[in-house]
Amino acid sequence: MTAFKYFQNEWTPVINEYLEKHLTADIDDQKISQIMSYSVMAGGKRLRPLLFLSTLNSLGKVITEKEVKIACGIELIHTYSLIHDDLPAMDNDDYRRGKLTSHKKWGEAEAILAGDALLPLGIQWIAEGSQSAALVEIITKAIGPNGMVGGQYLDINSTNNDSVAEDAEFINRMEWLKTGCLIQASVNMAAIYGEASQVEQVKLDDFAKMFGRAYQIYDDLVDVVETSEEAGKATHKDQEEGKNNTLTLLGIDKSRKELTDLIKQAKDDLNGLNSEVLAGFLDLYKKVL
Amino acid sequence: MTAFKYFQNEWTPVINEYLEKHLTADIDDQKISQIMSYSVMAGGKRLRPLLFLSTLNSLGKVITEKEVKIACGIELIHTYSLIHDDLPAMDNDDYRRGKLTSHKKWGEAEAILAGDALLPLGIQWIAEGSQSAALVEIITKAIGPNGMVGGQYLDINSTNNDSVAEDAEFINRMEWLKTGCLIQASVNMAAIYGEASQVEQVKLDDFAKMFGRAYQIYDDLVDVVETSEEAGKATHKDQEEGKNNTLTLLGIDKSRKELTDLIKQAKDDLNGLNSEVLAGFLDLYKKVL
Repeated sequence: MTAFKYFQNEWTPVINEYLEKHLTADIDDQKISQIMSYSVMAGGKRLRPLLFLSTLNSLGKVITEKEVKIACGIELIHTYSLIHDDLPAMDNDDYRRGKLTSHKKWGEAEAILAGDALLPLGIQWIAEGSQSAALVEIITKAIGPNGMVGGQYLDINSTNNDSVAEDAEFINRMEWLKTGCLIQASVNMAAIYGEASQVEQVKLDDFAKMFGRAYQIYDDLVDVVETSEEAGKATHKDQEEGKNNTLTLLGIDKSRKELTDLIKQAKDDLNGLNSEVLAGFLDLYKKVL
Repeated sequence: MTAFKYFQNEWTPVINEYLEKHLTADIDDQKISQIMSYSVMAGGKRLRPLLFLSTLNSLGKVITEKEVKIACGIELIHTYSLIHDDLPAMDNDDYRRGKLTSHKKWGEAEAILAGDALLPLGIQWIAEGSQSAALVEIITKAIGPNGMVGGQYLDINSTNNDSVAEDAEFINRMEWLKTGCLIQASVNMAAIYGEASQVEQVKLDDFAKMFGRAYQIYDDLVDVVETSEEAGKATHKDQEEGKNNTLTLLGIDKSRKELTDLIKQAKDDLNGLNSEVLAGFLDLYKKVL
């Protein structure tokens, strides 16, 4: 078993247990707790919390409940973004991870509020786990108007807009903001929290940028390579809906080539770090290559 | 001129200038900046930021740009809550403060995203201004599932539900969560940031609870006492829409009596503090008495 697989098998259940327990025990109203848990416990890969924890691991930091709490805070924020992205006014998706989306299951107001509750709760967990205003600054910048939400805004504003279909710079920027920023923040929060040296911080940040960029291309490729049963959501949907992304810009073969290059660069960035687990993350992308 | 009026006249323009400047300069995408500014600069009274600053004032803390930044962060969060409350799936309001609501002006996806951008940006400003994870914990708890969003959930879930119309405890709890929590957090953040003594913290917290409770009753009374032109939004709307609140429970006369009692208790809580400015806040409520 690779070091990554071992790490993933060890920590994924810990993350899932923490999420399930605290989304029930720490929320007063059992109905809104249930609505929030429904989406959080829908079987995500826990990519961002694992990335946070494995970056700590690469810095030799011992993982205790506090670190798991921070990691889970990131997952709450990721889940909020999925719930709002699926809303009728946004991507209008009925299924996610093989289950009805939040608004289809509970109603639109409920889905908006579940997202609105997960976002501050995620930041609360990060603040409580870390006792660090610096980590709060990293995460809030990553998901605000100059980060994730800014990317989502560019996305809704450019769908079916042919003038950006050939604009590689615009598409790169939109995709980076939408998904890259939160991935980068997961690594950078761990670098600050784990007291990385300046050199380590730079290497990890470079790795996070390559990893985040690769993730976008991977995610676009999943949309065409997998059947919807495998992906647990409607696939082949981006092109039908006039979405502009790297895949629609480059086509499948060139996207795969770029993904391969990014994986190589990301591995190079990890040179000199104790990074066996982190490097193993890049194997996730193999299934679309 | 009262001490409160003087304070209000001094700091309201400073708050407005900070908001206007930084919502333009600090946001990369000018269109989403414009959508966010539209709602933030729609002429709010800046009650929560003024409450934060005047609590600092009562503790002898000098107000500089850092403190204004924290105060303005609270206002961004308040504005996000108004934008989402107005959405078609929620209260479905067309006007707010005499202007079209965000979704009526810009579209529903845009309004959801403007709220989603204001929330983390507000927390970012609080973290950057205070460098305090403790303040982030206070604000995130106040607006999460056990705070503001929890109250909004109880509200949408109880509208047109006759079984709660006579349930004073439920209504108190819902109203407290919806508006009281954020008001209390504005005072408590200042108490921690301004290094209040234990005794001062307790007095300020008691004041904040009375003030917050009074504000809800005030806000309900505005709905029936003012014409819609004065209030800048649709009034007389709560009763028509089957909303349950203290006013529908107690009627106008008893609500006024309770408001009068709360003002007296809030003033008593301030005994022994240097609180001339804070006490003056309570005069706001006179216009519905």
